[in-house]
This record gives sequence, structure tokens and C-alpha cells, in this order.
Amino acid sequence: MNNFPEQVTLVEVGPRDGLQNEKHPVTTQTKIELVERLAEAGLTKIETGSFVSPKWVPQMADSGDVFAGIQRNPVVTYSALTPNHKGFELAMAAGADEVAIFGAASQSFSQKNINCSIEESLERFAPVLDAALAHGKRVRGYVSCVLGCPYEGYIAPEQVARVSKLMLDMGCYEISLGDTIGTGTPVKTRAMLDAVMTQIPASRLAVHFHDTYGQALANLTMALGCGIQVIDSAVAGLGGCPYAKGASGNVATEDVLYMLDGMGIRTGVNMDRLLDTSRFISQTLGRPPVSKAANALLAAR
Amino acid sequence: MNNFPEQVTLVEVGPRDGLQNEKHPVTTQTKIELVERLAEAGLTKIETGSFVSPKWVPQMADSGDVFAGIQRNPVVTYSALTPNHKGFELAMAAGADEVAIFGAASQSFSQKNINCSIEESLERFAPVLDAALAHGKRVRGYVSCVLGCPYEGYIAPEQVARVSKLMLDMGCYEISLGDTIGTGTPVKTRAMLDAVMTQIPASRLAVHFHDTYGQALANLTMALGCGIQVIDSAVAGLGGCPYAKGASGNVATEDVLYMLDGMGIRTGVNMDRLLDTSRFISQTLGRPPVSKAANALLAAR
Repeated sequence: MNNFPEQVTLVEVGPRDGLQNEKHPVTTQTKIELVERLAEAGLTKIETGSFVSPKWVPQMADSGDVFAGIQRNPVVTYSALTPNHKGFELAMAAGADEVAIFGAASQSFSQKNINCSIEESLERFAPVLDAALAHGKRVRGYVSCVLGCPYEGYIAPEQVARVSKLMLDMGCYEISLGDTIGTGTPVKTRAMLDAVMTQIPASRLAVHFHDTYGQALANLTMALGCGIQVIDSAVAGLGGCPYAKGASGNVATEDVLYMLDGMGIRTGVNMDRLLDTSRFISQTLGRPPVSKAANALLAAR
Repeated sequence: MNNFPEQVTLVEVGPRDGLQNEKHPVTTQTKIELVERLAEAGLTKIETGSFVSPKWVPQMADSGDVFAGIQRNPVVTYSALTPNHKGFELAMAAGADEVAIFGAASQSFSQKNINCSIEESLERFAPVLDAALAHGKRVRGYVSCVLGCPYEGYIAPEQVARVSKLMLDMGCYEISLGDTIGTGTPVKTRAMLDAVMTQIPASRLAVHFHDTYGQALANLTMALGCGIQVIDSAVAGLGGCPYAKGASGNVATEDVLYMLDGMGIRTGVNMDRLLDTSRFISQTLGRPPVSKAANALLAAR
């Protein structure tokens, strides 16, 4: 924890991982404005939508329209979650700059979430990776449940390292390690990262924390101290936690940015514009941002 | 950040620093039950009240009755804030086990908060310390604004170290370093602690973080890594922030305990009983706990 990076890349997952878990439906126009405002705030990596069966995720049924509607900013990477080859083709047709696949470090979670074992899920991802690499598109790999599973509880760091290495070897350029249920704490975060980093350099890793138990920034502090330089977050803390009723989900981009700005770590993101974006989407959803920094800073305006 | 303590002492400040800043008045009986429930949860240091002029702090006017009403647990230290000699005499009459004085690292804050310079405030504390030591009572010293001032902004770590050392040399057994406005982040926390620890060993220090901008647990992670083993917190995150309207105040004991339990750091506090206490005071105040861990854990019950 004695050396922190000078620069960090924030990957904004609010429009996808966030809105996908929000109760209130959001219009396509609102999604388009949200993505455009995030780009204006300085976020250069925005997970814009997902091409999953609308039967499973109706909230993302209009992802094609969102990609079609946004004014593109040339410095921004607009990515899409694509669980299979069909999803990948739709993402390409929509003009996604990059795609992501979603795996798990927990067999039970993989079975309940995508109805197959970890190994079967990797087999399903293979054609997506082949097609993406053939199209010259980069693929980001998510590994969920890296600090705990809603069904199994403890997940061994070695298991997280094994699955992460398999996805990297399949061709993912970056592995995003997700504390899906938010039960991680700093010592567990370090143990997990230590195990993963025996297989994968920090430069190919990202962390994805949920703030369900308020631990996200503490875990991020540890991850930054371990050399992690890519952080996933969602504006206004979008996205509840399906595994803890009434609990919060993704760590808020505002809270992460407040910490990084205070630590002198560059991100290129402008807090004022981010706060405008936070207020915009929160007013649309009819609730205050799930972000202490946003609420305190907006109250002081 | 590579070595964390095996054990940490939590100093519960909810009944005093918390309730003093709550809008809704709380009955003496509720305060008594709160203090007794906190002791049952395993908290051994409880800031029970304050003996300040009721003109300034009407919320604490019944502190004598609270001390008189609580069933004492022999392993618990029930402390009181005593700004001057009169307050100290009242605290002794009420049977306080320990007293605390409240100083500041910021001249402007000292002037606006207690109408005198830092040096004058120390002169006022001298008779309290003399009397306390004569009575064989320990005195805890609070230093506020250690990571920022609502009037001056930046506060030099050397200034925090200077004031802290003066209060220690006057006879305080422990100095609690308070981020009064919650603007601290991990790197600033480390710089402040590094400066203070050139004057005072970690064993004589405590940290007191406010979660106004959501940074408290990140700062605590850094403080623990620096060797701090005493942490102030307030059940249910009691106490708003007078300097950021609508913002949260003291870090919630539940969030701190969730982190420490997850890190394998012993505290002797029982989470289930703490959650009962959190629900009790939150229902009395008519709002949910200002604690993500409490809300997630209570929702799962």
C-alpha cells in the first residue's frame, strides 16, 4: 500500500450493469443522453449496452437503438456485453467498439446465472472470441464472485486465478475481477489479487467492486496499492444488488473519483460534469444518487 | 499496508457525538437504553454524554440523568466530554469513568467553534487535566480538522502533529485524530499520520473519521496499515454533518465492524447485537441506519 499508481482508467458500467438492475424502466432516449453525458464528463470507456436475449434481460432490449442513437466521441470506447455468438453479431451490427463476456469463479453461480458449468461457459465464449479477434475487436472478460458467491459463500483465490487465466489465454485483453455480492474486505481483496497476479500481470487486470456492505473504497485502496490501474464503477451507484434486497450495488463513480482526485491519481474525468450526469439520471429514476460524495457535493451547490 | 493489527478497540461515540448532531430530540430513557444496548453488544468504551452549557448544546442537557440512569457494566468505560473545569465537576458528580477534551488543529475552526485560539483552548483545558489527574481519571484528547477545515481548507500535517503533541504532553493518555468534515482520502491520511507519528507512538493514537464523502473505510484501511489500533465510530452512523447539509457524519460502527470482522481483526463486538441496537435507535429516529452493512444485513434477516 505504499505505492499508488499515478493514473487510473475508470470503466463506466452504469448504462449496462447499472440500469440492467434498476427496477424502474428507462427510456432509450434517457439511455442515449446518459451515455453522451458520461462521455462529456471525460469517461473514455463506457459499457453502453448488452446483447442478451430480451427474455432474460428486458431492460437491455433496446441496446441496438442506444448504440444507433448516441453521438460518438472518437476518444471513447463504447462496449457491449455479448454472451454468445448471436449477441456478438448484433453488437457488431450495432457498431460496438469492443465486447465483453461474463464468466464466474463459482460453479453454483455459473449454473444458476447462465445455466452451465464454468467449463461449458468458456466453450460458449470461444466462438465469440474467435469472431471478435477475426473482426479485430478486443474482448474484455468479467469474472464474477471473486470474493464470495451468494450460493457457495467462500471462493478460493486459486479458483479465481484459474478461471481468470483461462479467459485471458482464450484471448481476453483484460480481466475484470468482480466482487458480485460485495462481501469482500481489504485483506481478502489482497489475498485474491496476490493469487491472480501469480498468473496475470496487474496491467491486464481491472477490479469491479459492489458497495453492498460499504466496503468498495476500502477494497479499492488495497487494490490500488497492489498495482491495479483499471476500476469499474457506475455513475450514481446505479444498479441494486439482486442478492441483498434493498442493498446498493456498483460502487458509485463519484465516490471513486472523489477518492482518486484526493489521492492525486489522474483519471481525466471532471467531477462537476459527472455530478451533472449523476443528478440527471437520479432525477429520472426519482431517487437521490447512491453516492455519499455526490449527495454532499450536490447539497453544497 | 502490509501489516494490520490483530485487535482493535472501537470507541462508540453515537450517544454523544452522534445524538448531539441529530435533528430529532431523543428522550433520556432512549439514551439510557441505547448506551445499555451498546454495552451488551460488546462495546467497552462508550462516550455517554457531554457536560457543556445547555445553551450551546441542548441535546446533551440531560447527560447527568443518562449517567445516573444506566445500569453500569463493570468492563465498560463510560466517558463524558468536558470542555472546562465546571463541566469536569459535573462529570465527576455524574460518575463518568473518563473525560475528554475537544481541541482543533485549525485556528479558524477553534475560533468559530469554541471562540478562542488553539493556544487559549489549551489553557482552558489545563485545569481540567490537573483536576482529572488529581482524581485519578484519564483524559482523552480530540484534535479536530486533522484532514481539512470548513473555513481554512488545507491543514498542514505538521500543525496536526504539533497540537496533538501539546495535548499529549498536557496529560492526555490518547489523542483521537478527527477528520471533522470528512474530506480526507487515503494518501492524505497516511501523510497526516506519518507526521503525527514522528511525535506520538501509534499506541497513543486513535482515528475518528466522518463518512461525509464515503471515504471513511478507505482511510481506516490506511490507518490500520499505519498501525492505528483504536477507532471511533457511531452506531447507525448517528450524527449528521453540520458543514455539509444533508450529508452523513460519523462512520457507522456496523460498517467498521463488518470490515474488521472480514479482515480477521478482533474487536469483541457482536454484529447481531449491534444490528439490534442499530435498528432500535434508527426506528426511534424514524429513519434507516446510515450504514450500508446494517441495511444489507437487516434486510437479509
